[in-house]
Amino acid sequence: MNSNSSSSPKVPIPTLERLATYLRFLIDLEAAQVETISSTDVEKQTGINAAQFRKDLSYFGEFGKPGVGYNVLELQARIARILKIDQLQPIMVIGAGNLGSALIGYPGLTEHKFHIAAAFDRDPAKIGRPQGDLVILNEADVREVNAEIGARIAIICVPAAAAQEVADTAILAGVRVILNFAPIILKVPERIVVRNVSFLQELAVLSYHLSGESQK
Amino acid sequence: MNSNSSSSPKVPIPTLERLATYLRFLIDLEAAQVETISSTDVEKQTGINAAQFRKDLSYFGEFGKPGVGYNVLELQARIARILKIDQLQPIMVIGAGNLGSALIGYPGLTEHKFHIAAAFDRDPAKIGRPQGDLVILNEADVREVNAEIGARIAIICVPAAAAQEVADTAILAGVRVILNFAPIILKVPERIVVRNVSFLQELAVLSYHLSGESQK
Repeated sequence: MNSNSSSSPKVPIPTLERLATYLRFLIDLEAAQVETISSTDVEKQTGINAAQFRKDLSYFGEFGKPGVGYNVLELQARIARILKIDQLQPIMVIGAGNLGSALIGYPGLTEHKFHIAAAFDRDPAKIGRPQGDLVILNEADVREVNAEIGARIAIICVPAAAAQEVADTAILAGVRVILNFAPIILKVPERIVVRNVSFLQELAVLSYHLSGESQK
Repeated sequence: MNSNSSSSPKVPIPTLERLATYLRFLIDLEAAQVETISSTDVEKQTGINAAQFRKDLSYFGEFGKPGVGYNVLELQARIARILKIDQLQPIMVIGAGNLGSALIGYPGLTEHKFHIAAAFDRDPAKIGRPQGDLVILNEADVREVNAEIGARIAIICVPAAAAQEVADTAILAGVRVILNFAPIILKVPERIVVRNVSFLQELAVLSYHLSGESQK
């Protein structure tokens, strides 16, 4: 994953990524009615070692009690607050193909206070089609629609050739951060944060781990 | 992104991720018939700074010529070799919903020598359905099919509740590395490498960057 950011968060990106992992784990624990956990439990369940977990939390002050562990609900609320997902966050999805559709229906969004508020496409065959609780809107209306919904997060899942144009439009419409699935590097103003998810990059990193076996 | 790996590659994961970014960039340059690039070009186009680029390459010996730059084809071939994607790599996709379908049709797989050789689902309505060049196969036949196609990479895009079971099956069928899209932490033997792609994690990290604006 690449993240190019102009803002300079004090917290390293890998820590933020792990915090998001802890949060998902804590939401599962809440659902399972678990009340308290230890850092050793975290290690067993997430694969992130206990010392790393404690270090990640140490950025944000005091957590947990020695010998008692961490209160699941309290820790969950504090991590959500750190990640700024303690209030409902509207999101726009641009590109309603298979990937966009998968994201619109992705489980767990609501528990994380994310709300796909609108989905757009430029294909006349898709515009007006129901998708989950939404109706696919015309990509030409991104600015107009966002004046109402106020999404500051956009997920871009259009083909590479269209991605820069829709990113520009989303930014003009008030979007501040972009999750980009298109396999191109977007040019954005400095204040805009982009994270790129590249399936090819993920596969390439995995492929490396087949070394030895594959090269004999 | 989390990557839990038991093998101990000498090259750090972030370097591998950047190598995959360079590779994609070089493939684009080849298509555009560009013959030579400088590390400054790389910085301009990928956002990864020139010094980082040179440092990443330095793990693997001598590249490029001072004042001349890097030969696009040569550098592409060497990075592909480092990432072990210099030979066609069969992949199985388990779960043929929207996300699986998006992956099966994902552009650029062939250029990276990845080949989705089989796609599986357990839904009788999906089994037998054509999907791109494939026909969706029965998930119950993973082992039998893989005895023929020899995939060592599996992409798991089934719901969380089914993911551990299909991972176990894939591993029994000979899979060595897994790209997991299901929002659970898979339990796998030490020799198996898993990379998790979590849309929620990506969104949570982006959400953090909305701080200040969102909290006033």
